[in-house]
Amino acid sequence: MSEVRDKASLAKQTATTMSRLTTEQKNHALLHMAQALTKEHVSIVAANELDIKRGRENGTSESMLDRLTLTQKRINDIAEGLREVVLLPDPVGLLMETFDRPNGLRVEKISVPLGVIGMIYEARPNVTVDAAGLCLKTGNAIVLRGGSAALESNRRIVEVLREALAETDLPPDALQLIEDPSRSSVDEMLKLNGLLDVIIPRGGASLIRNVVENATVPVIETGAGICHTFIDASADAVMASDIAFNARVQRPSVCNSMETLLIHEDFAAIHLRVIADRFLAANVELRGCPRTLELVSEAKPVTDEDFATEYNDYILNVRVVANLDEALDHIRKFGTMHSECIVTEDKANAERFLQEVDAAAVYHNASTRFTDGFEFGFGAEIGISTQKLHARGPMGLPALTSTKFRVYGNGQIRG
Amino acid sequence: MSEVRDKASLAKQTATTMSRLTTEQKNHALLHMAQALTKEHVSIVAANELDIKRGRENGTSESMLDRLTLTQKRINDIAEGLREVVLLPDPVGLLMETFDRPNGLRVEKISVPLGVIGMIYEARPNVTVDAAGLCLKTGNAIVLRGGSAALESNRRIVEVLREALAETDLPPDALQLIEDPSRSSVDEMLKLNGLLDVIIPRGGASLIRNVVENATVPVIETGAGICHTFIDASADAVMASDIAFNARVQRPSVCNSMETLLIHEDFAAIHLRVIADRFLAANVELRGCPRTLELVSEAKPVTDEDFATEYNDYILNVRVVANLDEALDHIRKFGTMHSECIVTEDKANAERFLQEVDAAAVYHNASTRFTDGFEFGFGAEIGISTQKLHARGPMGLPALTSTKFRVYGNGQIRG
Repeated sequence: MSEVRDKASLAKQTATTMSRLTTEQKNHALLHMAQALTKEHVSIVAANELDIKRGRENGTSESMLDRLTLTQKRINDIAEGLREVVLLPDPVGLLMETFDRPNGLRVEKISVPLGVIGMIYEARPNVTVDAAGLCLKTGNAIVLRGGSAALESNRRIVEVLREALAETDLPPDALQLIEDPSRSSVDEMLKLNGLLDVIIPRGGASLIRNVVENATVPVIETGAGICHTFIDASADAVMASDIAFNARVQRPSVCNSMETLLIHEDFAAIHLRVIADRFLAANVELRGCPRTLELVSEAKPVTDEDFATEYNDYILNVRVVANLDEALDHIRKFGTMHSECIVTEDKANAERFLQEVDAAAVYHNASTRFTDGFEFGFGAEIGISTQKLHARGPMGLPALTSTKFRVYGNGQIRG
Repeated sequence: MSEVRDKASLAKQTATTMSRLTTEQKNHALLHMAQALTKEHVSIVAANELDIKRGRENGTSESMLDRLTLTQKRINDIAEGLREVVLLPDPVGLLMETFDRPNGLRVEKISVPLGVIGMIYEARPNVTVDAAGLCLKTGNAIVLRGGSAALESNRRIVEVLREALAETDLPPDALQLIEDPSRSSVDEMLKLNGLLDVIIPRGGASLIRNVVENATVPVIETGAGICHTFIDASADAVMASDIAFNARVQRPSVCNSMETLLIHEDFAAIHLRVIADRFLAANVELRGCPRTLELVSEAKPVTDEDFATEYNDYILNVRVVANLDEALDHIRKFGTMHSECIVTEDKANAERFLQEVDAAAVYHNASTRFTDGFEFGFGAEIGISTQKLHARGPMGLPALTSTKFRVYGNGQIRG
């Protein structure tokens, strides 16, 4: 048995037990996990320091090291996150629909856990706890495969959480960490039909692509976001500038940030220069279409490859368009169906944009940065789905459930 | 451009138009399609005769040829099926949820079409019309890849339907048939991310397996059904016999029929002989566990491979079990999470079975044959999902939709 198959089998064996748990049992376990994390912060920080040391030796960037770093304060915040999940309604065991058939059969559609969730993600060790909390709250077992950069941290965190589970009604084996840092452990997870019910990848474009292209287990694709803001001719100039600036600059590294600004030519003629200055002052590199270059000499020429790139950085493509149609065409061609925004005072254009743009979230006069489980009020987020099956957009707890039909008869047979 | 990519691109280009159609426009098109089919029955039957002739030359079995055959009556029935879809509620454009956020954002969750659906299926030409009707009703474009055995029939049917669409508001290109009968056209569809939003396979186990193992486009897995009936110690003998007999014999070739009968040893000691006689009288071959062989000398020994086989035929595995736990273990090991039944008068055992068995549909005292969109009252069925993502069990029209968040603001930015 390989580590992956072995641990996934152990997780699978807990699925029945997990599906039967009461909300109280699950909440108690989450609180106990939170308590254990804060109690064990010293050993977790010590393990984390090994990751940081190795990262520094390997020349990892300071911003990456910062994301990797755990402190007592951060561990307390992570534990607090678990306590917040306790407060969320349990989406399992709900009667979604019920219908009585003419032959006397009663059919009930009930929400149930997905079963065993495989989670493949990158360096941030807080994902380890978040994912564990959300999956266990929804009665799922979980097999975590975190990035090797956080291996020592993840190992200690999962050890602490499993020890905590051992003191509750939840089977510790419902929480598994794959420690093999090689690519082959990921490859094996992707093909583990029968043991894993779904795989959720979280990370950069290449991680996601590998999962989507190679998994035979059903996948919920998350994350890749080439998001656009289209400023229409009638847009309020201040609002448009604020929304565009926020969408790119407030947190450039995330998937719901804007990569390309599309501007109606009439608006651009008057306002692009001022908006560009604001970005330049914030050290945003501008890459523009020919019309943009005429108005903003500081910009570099933009390429189609740029339009197809998720920078997640202080870089912005700018393209002047003749009208809404050209903007829609551009988004159809380069968008990743994540989050798209129109800033306009023209209600008909706004409705057309919201109707025609094929994306998880479409905005009228608000920053794309709001595509987020917490901002939408879900109280949690396991990821942002960019596919159309099962869940689309920010995924809260209900996205971690499936359904089952229970059918009650008294001897019905089919004629 | 290959045929597959070419036609999928044409379908994709209609997606925006399709998503904007009113229910009236779609219903009018379906009625027009139905009318065209009945009007063109002569040419459709003529095309079908070519398929039948070729099939006969190739030694196709009579039962397969029967499933392939179209007559005026069958074509009228198929057209009637389209008219029934007209009567179903349109699941697109519904406001599923709405919430106002403290910052003034209004978030609306709206149901939308999936986009372009790829359908890979086997010989029966009625699936061509059914799938077209259900997908178009839900505002989806569809790329059909039917079995080569029905190619002439499918070609003429799709020609008739596209000509009918040309006289409505629906773009004919929303309906595409891949005519390349080679395996490579299937392989190409499976990797057509960006053009196909989902693939739904319908057919035998090997077709499904090929799709699940090789698709990078999201898949809704359908169909494979190794279904069990467990007769508990307390079962009503007549009811148990009727349900088991119905589940195997009423229509052996379908996925919701029973492959293995599990019988509590106490019940078996008294009733197995009589039940076995009923199956034997109906020419059902019995394959039994050692205890079964003691009671039913006509049975052949059953193997683990038999337990893992979907016969879809007049063959039945029989296993005597000591108790409910043994039955649950067997189902966990060999079931395909399709449909599972317990026959019992013991309410606690029934509840435990319905709770613990991980399947799309779980039955108490009714035949597994009821797992069907029409029997559940959905008025349609695009297939029966055996996966847990997106849809599980019989899929009606709502399974062919996704959702989209529309967010209305007045300048909100994230702080």
